[in-house]
Amino acid sequence: MPFVSIRLAGSATKDQKSALVADVTRSLVERLGKNPAAVQIVIEEVNTENYGAGGQLIADRDAPMPREDAHAEPSQ
Amino acid sequence: MPFVSIRLAGSATKDQKSALVADVTRSLVERLGKNPAAVQIVIEEVNTENYGAGGQLIADRDAPMPREDAHAEPSQ
Amino acid sequence: MPFVSIRLAGSATKDQKSALVADVTRSLVERLGKNPAAVQIVIEEVNTENYGAGGQLIADRDAPMPREDAHAEPSQ
Amino acid sequence: MPFVSIRLAGSATKDQKSALVADVTRSLVERLGKNPAAVQIVIEEVNTENYGAGGQLIADRDAPMPREDAHAEPSQ
Amino acid sequence: MPFVSIRLAGSATKDQKSALVADVTRSLVERLGKNPAAVQIVIEEVNTENYGAGGQLIADRDAPMPREDAHAEPSQ
Amino acid sequence: MPFVSIRLAGSATKDQKSALVADVTRSLVERLGKNPAAVQIVIEEVNTENYGAGGQLIADRDAPMPREDAHAEPSQ
Repeated sequence: MPFVSIRLAGSATKDQKSALVADVTRSLVERLGKNPAAVQIVIEEVNTENYGAGGQLIADRDAPMPREDAHAEPSQ
Repeated sequence: MPFVSIRLAGSATKDQKSALVADVTRSLVERLGKNPAAVQIVIEEVNTENYGAGGQLIADRDAPMPREDAHAEPSQ
Repeated sequence: MPFVSIRLAGSATKDQKSALVADVTRSLVERLGKNPAAVQIVIEEVNTENYGAGGQLIADRDAPMPREDAHAEPSQ
Repeated sequence: MPFVSIRLAGSATKDQKSALVADVTRSLVERLGKNPAAVQIVIEEVNTENYGAGGQLIADRDAPMPREDAHAEPSQ
Repeated sequence: MPFVSIRLAGSATKDQKSALVADVTRSLVERLGKNPAAVQIVIEEVNTENYGAGGQLIADRDAPMPREDAHAEPSQ
Repeated sequence: MPFVSIRLAGSATKDQKSALVADVTRSLVERLGKNPAAVQIVIEEVNTENYGAGGQLIADRDAPMPREDAHAEPSQ
């Protein structure tokens, strides 16, 4: 009867999602003796503009930082 | 003060979602005496490529299986 | 295949939870044509010290307020 | 290690989401002594057709109501 | 950066939870290339009186049913 | 109308939870213009045996490790 929710920053391919569902279901069956037919799993692919970590959006964290040691003045 | 999250595999029409919200709110009011104004409900329509059940994606489970014993060539 | 999570402030009796599960399942079957066997519902009874609404904990909101200007005895 | 999920009815700008992530992370650091690097926050911008409050969809609640005091017959 | 929530009907031993966390983390690393240090997993052991499936509480479903066709009076 | 779920590893005092609710509500009001009366927040204090990070339970990560080679002085 387990229900699993997986939130990812960014997207995944269908093959990746399929493998993830198979792996997690197998673990619940082998480790806890759950009935595989009763395992439900939802994968949420969260836009990096909607996922924060360490106090900032991942979209910003992954962005190229302005280089402070640049010779020219930064345009912004 | 209840908060309800409903995850569906696939989509629903606006009328279906409206009826679901009305039904669930009414149940919380009648069964538990909750204030209807305080009931919040979110319906998530999950792509069948993102919903696993029984160890596989629902998108794969619902797909027509290749028929191994077919005499004729598959049309696709 | 729906999964429903219901968070309540405070507790509910087993009969109330049973009725809620029956009602919500019936709605998903009648409104959206879902298979009742596939409906999973989790009810979380949240301590009012862990549930905030309107900017404060419900445990504090429901508490009798000290009446600073009270001349007479409170009737309750 | 905190994980925070925020569900909003409607959308938010990137700047609003960025500010929200910064604020919530700071609160967890200052109030509970959490390590900011370990704070994860997901913001879900829920379509108002998928968010119910007070027994109806917000999309319907926000719709212009027929005005009962109108002199002319309402068109609907 | 993935966050995983696992809801189980009933309880699990610490060893089972430890194995589940290791398995799910490994799958996210191997299948999706995620950084294991960033994977957070919460396991909720839900009382069977709070978990509904197939329209009834699991606590009731698992209970011995009164046998209607029994010749003798049921002892309970 | 926002709903916020906060999962913490370990517990928090009532004062900490009260401050967290006030902070998060204020941020939603100031940053996004939400109505404070409509903000609902649930704080889940998760046992460290039920919270995994970096592939292991936090309960195990925080525990003093048995020193297998404890004859010599630890290098650190």
